[in-house]
Amino acid sequence: MFVPERLLMGPGPSNSPPRVLSAGGRQLIGHIHKEMIEIMDEIKVGIQYAFQTQNPLTLAVSGTGHCAMEAALLNVVEEGDKVLIGVNGYWGERATDIAKRLGAEVYQLVKEPGEHFTLEEIEKALLQHAPVLFFITHGESSTGVMQPLDGLGNLCHRYNCLLLIDAVASLGGAPILMDQQGIDILYSGSQKVLSAPPGACPISFSERARKKIYARKTKPVSFYLDMEELTKYWGCDGHPRKYHHTAPINTFFCLREALAILAETGLENSWKLHKENSLYLCSGLQKLGFKLFVKDLNARLPTVNTVFVPEGYNWKEITEYTMKNHGIEVSGGLGPSAGKVLRIGLMGYNSTKFNVDRVLHALEDALQHCLKNKL
Amino acid sequence: MFVPERLLMGPGPSNSPPRVLSAGGRQLIGHIHKEMIEIMDEIKVGIQYAFQTQNPLTLAVSGTGHCAMEAALLNVVEEGDKVLIGVNGYWGERATDIAKRLGAEVYQLVKEPGEHFTLEEIEKALLQHAPVLFFITHGESSTGVMQPLDGLGNLCHRYNCLLLIDAVASLGGAPILMDQQGIDILYSGSQKVLSAPPGACPISFSERARKKIYARKTKPVSFYLDMEELTKYWGCDGHPRKYHHTAPINTFFCLREALAILAETGLENSWKLHKENSLYLCSGLQKLGFKLFVKDLNARLPTVNTVFVPEGYNWKEITEYTMKNHGIEVSGGLGPSAGKVLRIGLMGYNSTKFNVDRVLHALEDALQHCLKNKL
Repeated sequence: MFVPERLLMGPGPSNSPPRVLSAGGRQLIGHIHKEMIEIMDEIKVGIQYAFQTQNPLTLAVSGTGHCAMEAALLNVVEEGDKVLIGVNGYWGERATDIAKRLGAEVYQLVKEPGEHFTLEEIEKALLQHAPVLFFITHGESSTGVMQPLDGLGNLCHRYNCLLLIDAVASLGGAPILMDQQGIDILYSGSQKVLSAPPGACPISFSERARKKIYARKTKPVSFYLDMEELTKYWGCDGHPRKYHHTAPINTFFCLREALAILAETGLENSWKLHKENSLYLCSGLQKLGFKLFVKDLNARLPTVNTVFVPEGYNWKEITEYTMKNHGIEVSGGLGPSAGKVLRIGLMGYNSTKFNVDRVLHALEDALQHCLKNKL
Repeated sequence: MFVPERLLMGPGPSNSPPRVLSAGGRQLIGHIHKEMIEIMDEIKVGIQYAFQTQNPLTLAVSGTGHCAMEAALLNVVEEGDKVLIGVNGYWGERATDIAKRLGAEVYQLVKEPGEHFTLEEIEKALLQHAPVLFFITHGESSTGVMQPLDGLGNLCHRYNCLLLIDAVASLGGAPILMDQQGIDILYSGSQKVLSAPPGACPISFSERARKKIYARKTKPVSFYLDMEELTKYWGCDGHPRKYHHTAPINTFFCLREALAILAETGLENSWKLHKENSLYLCSGLQKLGFKLFVKDLNARLPTVNTVFVPEGYNWKEITEYTMKNHGIEVSGGLGPSAGKVLRIGLMGYNSTKFNVDRVLHALEDALQHCLKNKL
C-alpha cells in the first residue's frame, strides 16, 4: 500500500500529530469493555469542553461529517416540519437536500457565497416561515466565511425555533460557546482542527432539542443514528449502558487523544493561535498579490482561508503544482466557489507559522512556474 | 489513555494483525488524492474477491455493521414496499426495526433461536406475502447458526423478490458466492474475519438490485448512504470521481490491508481453517462438559460458536472470570440467546489452534473456580 507524505493545507483532513496516530494503531479492545466505556466517557467530557456545554446528550456519532449532519437533522425533524436553512455556500445546499429527503418543508435563506447573514435578515425569515428549526453553518469551508453567532440563539428561541449549527470546519479554531450562545444542536468533525482521522463526529443537543426528540410522533428514519438509542449506548441518561452498535473503536481512540490535546492546549489559546496564523497567512498571500475572497474582516474563517484565483491562472494548475513539487495540498473551490477560489487550510496540528511559510513559498513558486508556462 | 491487552474471543471485534494496525497509524492523505482513489479501487477489488462477485456496484460504506444494514435496506426499500425478514435471532429483529422505520410493510418469518430456515418454509412465505425483498442472516452471531444459502437466490428470483444477505459475522469464515448463489445485496463488517478495526463495511449490489435502486420514485432517506451518490464517489460507473463525503481514511487503510491478507491467504484456505479450528474448539468444549447450542452440525457457524451455559452456573461469572484472570473475552448471549449461551468467536487473525487451546484452558479454569465459589 502506497501512502505518500503530504502536508495537508486544504479544507481538511489535516495531518494528525503522532500521539493521535499512535492511538489509532493500538490493538483493539471490545466495544463494551469497561476500558472502552471509560474512553467514551472521556470523549464525552472532551466534547463538552470543546463545545462549552453541560448538555448530558453529548456524544460522538460513528461516521464522518455528513453523517453528523444527517444525525442532527433526522433526530429533530419530522415529516412536514418547517425548516429554515441559511445558504451561503455548499453546506446549506447539502443540509437542504438532507432535510428534503426527510420530508421537511424547507425554506432557504440565501446570500451570495462570501457573505454572511445578519440578525435582521434571519429574524425576517423566522417571522415569515415560522420554522421549527434553523440551520446555519458557522465555518463555511466552501467560501471561507465565519458566521457571527452572538444573539442568534435568543432570536431563534423568541420564535420557538431550534438553532442548529454546523461547526465542522470551525470548532477549536474560533469561539463557539454552545450554552452561552443558546445553540440547540451543534456538531463538528474530527479531521479539521481536532486533527484526528475522519470517522467520528462530536455532537450535542440542548434540553430544548432533547425534548423535541423525545416528543416525536414517529421514530427517526435511522436506527444507527437514533439519539434515544445512542443516549442509552453512551450512558447520557445515567443508566447502565445498552449495546447499540459496534463503535469505530480505533477512531474513538484517536478522537479521545485529539480532544485531550485540545483541552491541554486550552480553547482560548487555540482560538488565538488560529487567528494569528490566519492573519499571518493572509498578509503573506496579499504580498504575493492574492486578493482575499471574504471582504468583511470579522467574517473571515481562520481555519479555511480563501483567495480569488489570480487572473490569467487556472486553479487546477496551481494546486497540482504545489502537490507535485512541494507535497503540499492546497484546494480549489467547492460548489458555488468552484473555479473561483483557492482554499488554504490552517487547522489544529497544521496551524503553525512554519507551515504558513511553507505554503506561501509553494504558492509563490507555483505562481512563477504556472506563469512561465503561459509565456 | 489506558488500553489493556486482550484476546478477543467473543463475537467481534477480533484482534487485528500488526500489518492492519500499522496501516491504521499511517499519516493521512486527502480523501480525493489519487493515491487514496487507488486504495479505494483496491478495496473494491478486494471486496469483489471476498464476495466472489463481478458487480460494479461494490464498495465500502463509511460506518460500522448496523450502518451497512441500513445502507442495504434504505437504498432498495421504498415506503409501502413489502419486505420479508427471516428472524431466528437478534439480526432479523434489528432488520425489522430498520425496515419499519423506512415505512416498509414488514412480514417476519420466525424460527426458534438456534434453528435455520428450509427452502420450503421460505417459499411458502414468499408465496403468501409476495415481498419485493427477502432479508436473511448468513451468520447469526447471536445464536451461532449458519443459514444454508444454496438455492435461495433462484427461489427468490422465481417470486420476483430480491435476496439480501447479512454476512457480517460469516464472510471469509464460510463459503459465500454472491454471483453463483444469486445474492442481490450482500454486506459484511470489517471487525470479524477480516480482523480490521470497525468503521467501514463491504457492500455489493447485483444488477437486479441496482435497477430497483435506479428506478426509485423517491430519493433514499439518507444522503450519506445513497448508492447513486456513492456510485459516483467510488467510480462504480466508470466516470471520474465526484466528491460525496470525507471517507474514514485510516479505517480504509486498514480495510485495504485486511482484504489483501484475505486474498493472499485465499478464500478456500480461510474457509478450511475456520472450519477446522471450530471443530477443534467444539470438540474441546464438549470434553469440558459443554453442550452445543446448535443441533444441526451443518448449520453451525464456524466463526461464532455457541454452547449452553452449564447448569448451575451464571454466564456472567464465567465471562468475567476469563476476562479478569486470563485477559480473554468470551461472550454471553444477545437478544433471544441472552442468559442461555456462551459465545466463543474464532475469526480471522484470532482463529488459530493456539487461541483455541488458550480459551479452552481459561474456560476449564473458570468452570472450576466458579464452581468452587458455589460450594
